[in-house]
Amino acid sequence: VEQQELESFKKNMDDLFLIIMGNFVFFLQPGFFLYESGTVRQKNVVSVAFRKFINTTISSLTYFLTGFALSFGDGNGFCGFQYFALVNLPDEMMAECFFQYTFAAVASSVPSGVVHERSSTVAFVSYTALTSGFIYPIAAHWVATKNGWLSRLGFDDFAFSGVVHAMSGATCLAAAWMTGPRLDRYQSGGQRRVVISPHSVPQMILGAFVFLFGMIAFNAGSQGSISQSGDGSIIAQVTINTLICAMTSAVTGLIYHRFIVDRSKKNWNYSSCVNGSFVGMVAICAGCNQFQCGGAFALGILSYLLYLAIQAIVEKLKVDDVVDGIAIQLGGGYAGLLSVPLFKDDGLLTNPSKSSPWGLLINAGGGIVIMLWSFSITILLYIVLRYFDLHRVSPSDEKLGLDMVIHKEKAYDHTTRK
Amino acid sequence: VEQQELESFKKNMDDLFLIIMGNFVFFLQPGFFLYESGTVRQKNVVSVAFRKFINTTISSLTYFLTGFALSFGDGNGFCGFQYFALVNLPDEMMAECFFQYTFAAVASSVPSGVVHERSSTVAFVSYTALTSGFIYPIAAHWVATKNGWLSRLGFDDFAFSGVVHAMSGATCLAAAWMTGPRLDRYQSGGQRRVVISPHSVPQMILGAFVFLFGMIAFNAGSQGSISQSGDGSIIAQVTINTLICAMTSAVTGLIYHRFIVDRSKKNWNYSSCVNGSFVGMVAICAGCNQFQCGGAFALGILSYLLYLAIQAIVEKLKVDDVVDGIAIQLGGGYAGLLSVPLFKDDGLLTNPSKSSPWGLLINAGGGIVIMLWSFSITILLYIVLRYFDLHRVSPSDEKLGLDMVIHKEKAYDHTTRK
Amino acid sequence: VEQQELESFKKNMDDLFLIIMGNFVFFLQPGFFLYESGTVRQKNVVSVAFRKFINTTISSLTYFLTGFALSFGDGNGFCGFQYFALVNLPDEMMAECFFQYTFAAVASSVPSGVVHERSSTVAFVSYTALTSGFIYPIAAHWVATKNGWLSRLGFDDFAFSGVVHAMSGATCLAAAWMTGPRLDRYQSGGQRRVVISPHSVPQMILGAFVFLFGMIAFNAGSQGSISQSGDGSIIAQVTINTLICAMTSAVTGLIYHRFIVDRSKKNWNYSSCVNGSFVGMVAICAGCNQFQCGGAFALGILSYLLYLAIQAIVEKLKVDDVVDGIAIQLGGGYAGLLSVPLFKDDGLLTNPSKSSPWGLLINAGGGIVIMLWSFSITILLYIVLRYFDLHRVSPSDEKLGLDMVIHKEKAYDHTTRK
Repeated sequence: VEQQELESFKKNMDDLFLIIMGNFVFFLQPGFFLYESGTVRQKNVVSVAFRKFINTTISSLTYFLTGFALSFGDGNGFCGFQYFALVNLPDEMMAECFFQYTFAAVASSVPSGVVHERSSTVAFVSYTALTSGFIYPIAAHWVATKNGWLSRLGFDDFAFSGVVHAMSGATCLAAAWMTGPRLDRYQSGGQRRVVISPHSVPQMILGAFVFLFGMIAFNAGSQGSISQSGDGSIIAQVTINTLICAMTSAVTGLIYHRFIVDRSKKNWNYSSCVNGSFVGMVAICAGCNQFQCGGAFALGILSYLLYLAIQAIVEKLKVDDVVDGIAIQLGGGYAGLLSVPLFKDDGLLTNPSKSSPWGLLINAGGGIVIMLWSFSITILLYIVLRYFDLHRVSPSDEKLGLDMVIHKEKAYDHTTRK
Repeated sequence: VEQQELESFKKNMDDLFLIIMGNFVFFLQPGFFLYESGTVRQKNVVSVAFRKFINTTISSLTYFLTGFALSFGDGNGFCGFQYFALVNLPDEMMAECFFQYTFAAVASSVPSGVVHERSSTVAFVSYTALTSGFIYPIAAHWVATKNGWLSRLGFDDFAFSGVVHAMSGATCLAAAWMTGPRLDRYQSGGQRRVVISPHSVPQMILGAFVFLFGMIAFNAGSQGSISQSGDGSIIAQVTINTLICAMTSAVTGLIYHRFIVDRSKKNWNYSSCVNGSFVGMVAICAGCNQFQCGGAFALGILSYLLYLAIQAIVEKLKVDDVVDGIAIQLGGGYAGLLSVPLFKDDGLLTNPSKSSPWGLLINAGGGIVIMLWSFSITILLYIVLRYFDLHRVSPSDEKLGLDMVIHKEKAYDHTTRK
Repeated sequence: VEQQELESFKKNMDDLFLIIMGNFVFFLQPGFFLYESGTVRQKNVVSVAFRKFINTTISSLTYFLTGFALSFGDGNGFCGFQYFALVNLPDEMMAECFFQYTFAAVASSVPSGVVHERSSTVAFVSYTALTSGFIYPIAAHWVATKNGWLSRLGFDDFAFSGVVHAMSGATCLAAAWMTGPRLDRYQSGGQRRVVISPHSVPQMILGAFVFLFGMIAFNAGSQGSISQSGDGSIIAQVTINTLICAMTSAVTGLIYHRFIVDRSKKNWNYSSCVNGSFVGMVAICAGCNQFQCGGAFALGILSYLLYLAIQAIVEKLKVDDVVDGIAIQLGGGYAGLLSVPLFKDDGLLTNPSKSSPWGLLINAGGGIVIMLWSFSITILLYIVLRYFDLHRVSPSDEKLGLDMVIHKEKAYDHTTRK
């Protein structure tokens, strides 16, 4: 057997691995659709369906046009500038390109979730295109390429707790803050927060299961290859860590609500449990390749606490977030960034070395820079949108619901005789 | 290391590749169910559920009984005749057999979609069994085996834009034409076409996402092996081309409706966008392994135009198609067949050689023969069905809805207190 | 090329194979959710959603805590005792651990299905944790490890028709019997059985498709490796056998209902067909790696007959089973156990040898021991639960529905203007 034949076979397997994992991550797109369309009121379901489908459209075309080039083309420490429109992209980078696209699709899908039921079509198209074609790719370049300035400083974020999740959490915060709350979200002069109940719990829960499925691949695929010695056991550890962290965080949320928030009502709250699982999934991304199971367990609890803190701040600021995406992405994502220098084998809490504090500083500080990056560009975009009064639909349209106003379609027709 | 050991390992990987891709293509079955059951009125939802599940049943049993034998058994230029009921099928062809089955399942599922809400159970069973056990397998033999007469002439259809999609589009046309329109589809003596709105948009959209997921594997799996040098980058190119073509076609549909069809109403139409993505997915099958990204992009636009033309003809003929399947499959499929000799590396529009016009002639003509094949057999079947008045349910049954008439079940029971 | 490099590559592929197949089996979790939440009445849908999500949570944490240790740790013939909380689990067993977890998730999910709409939260948590952390892992140790006492006797159950399905069927029977029927299930002093119609047929059918998808991987992944000579064709045979057996059983159910049960009403019953497919999927697990296609076909018919017999007994005993899980799991699972010594290459009905009767005795007797094991422990649990009156909700709560009582949430809000 020639070595060359084996190398070519290995390369094929790496490509197949990235494509299959990419397919699973791509399947997060219907996950977002299900979860978000279940969450909104019936009058905005077609709008959610439309935007989630269009998100796939816009994110793929923009990522292939500029996103991959800015991320993974040769360039400087700030961004790449090669392979625009995938021109001259070498065959051996094709699989990587698809896999990376599926991350851009995730990064650009979350923000549209938090501002549903009031955001305009123009705003939606703008921030989606901007996130997948510009903001996310540049942050990815900083962290995931040898040249990237954060990468050179030692920023450690395996499956992008920071670059995808904390980044998009900051976009979410900017978008929700600049868009303003839904009309009927606050009563009594803005003092009382109104619970807006979801129109379909089964759709939400199906979406939550799809997230679990997709996020396992999100993390496992981040290994990038399957042909090198040890790859197999790393993706297995990643998979188990993802489950443990997500499920521990889910249980934490469940217990917190049953015995603290709702202890008088004694009711079991599915949504605290589901949101908990999201927080855990997001948090474990950064260190899932390095942690022992115990680290994943501890992070499951700690990340939920950070999520609660951020959720409280978001509520205090009267920022209206349809899917709780800000607290999940910021809390989970930033907890993930902090966890790596703390929990990894030579981490500050496990077996500290001289360089351990530096690792914490870089991950903590780098995460803030990434969040500021996406936050400030989104704010700039919204300043322009607000100037032209394009950031949200009119109050009367919002009351009618976006389905009849923008799409002239109803989500359901339950007429039995027709 | 012995060469033999590596070869056996490679063969295992090829089998695994086909089985995983086949599993994804098999997942198109719930995709059809979701999309079609969302599209129909509530009184016919159980009927759609039943037929889509039974489609899986019939297509698997008939394909294993006769389909695979007629396709891939040794035989002559017209059909194979070996391995009926999979008897004596060699172990090394098992994975191929499963993968090919999933294509037959797709080919036989589309036709039942276009004649929902009025087609009889007998008609449904007949054309499903005929398509998966006879019509499709023979067309596949022509194109996908060395012996096949179209294959020998140089017919070039990588992932079956022609053999699956244009073929089934012609079956759809024959079935919908012979079945006749739904009772309430045309008013004022047949002059005015009535819009029948879907009963659940979320079900449709979830189905559309499942299609995207499944069709990527439909095209990637068509490479057939993953162990040969270059396989990995080809399936990656295939994946990206599928996304680009589908999404370009989706955007074309969206823009066409917003700025041409609905320019006065100014509404954004989700269904033009979703149907556009279907057209693109179907069109790219034939050439996704050969095209550069630019070719996929151009085909996305052109295939949508052919789809529009065929849709106009279908409407002109007053053929009632519940899911727009005729125009999608014929328009997308035939555009795909034409695209290969035009856009491939030595294509007529890129770098023509002396044999290029011949390639166009074969693909254009072969596609027509395939369509005539499935069209005429379906017409023959319907002549028999109509003779015995078995082709559709009675007008009174159609008004009541197939659920209560054929299944004696309602799709939903939204009684809150019981 | 060094042999070592190839071995390490092969190990990676085995790990990847187990992780991908495990991901597909994990996707059975939303399958259970969809099928069961569609089946219940609208007032209990949130409860089903909650429990199915929590099932994933509990089963993963308990399996990793004690389940894997009791199953696959070194130990004696009864159970293992190593790797509790996955401590010191070697890297090379990680992928196996995840794959095995997905089976525990299935085994523990079925029982909660049969007692929906009346079972208490405490009961649900207890039997779920007990099944995934104790009952199932110990049965798996008996059969799937070299040391296991049934394994040493020659018990032959490839993909766990007995260890997962018949085992959980016995748990189901114990739970449903001890819980008692739903209040409105029997009228006229318990004489007349009331049909409780599902609240959403589309949700059920989507769940059924997801089962088909997941069970193919359940069986294929049971091969455990993809790198050994012949692995590829075995998983292909397994896949085709699973389809054939499931679909034959589906057709048997369909024909039985159309021409025997409902021959006067002449209606086609989707649920007999869907349940038939479940029976076939469950039955083929045990022998799918050894049977020819003909064996899978015969088993499809025979397993349905055993299912019918058990279904009749369950009805006779007035045990109320929301999803027909007892008959499916016991009938399908036990038929599977019996089929191996009958239909395999040197089976009693094919080519009997001197040891063939012994094989039948072991599979028949071993299956009964496994069922008694899970049945008796579940009964013990319920004796305790009933003593403290914790086994089901109060009659008034049951009438109101678990959603408003336990969760204070409605599944749907179809208000159109709000």
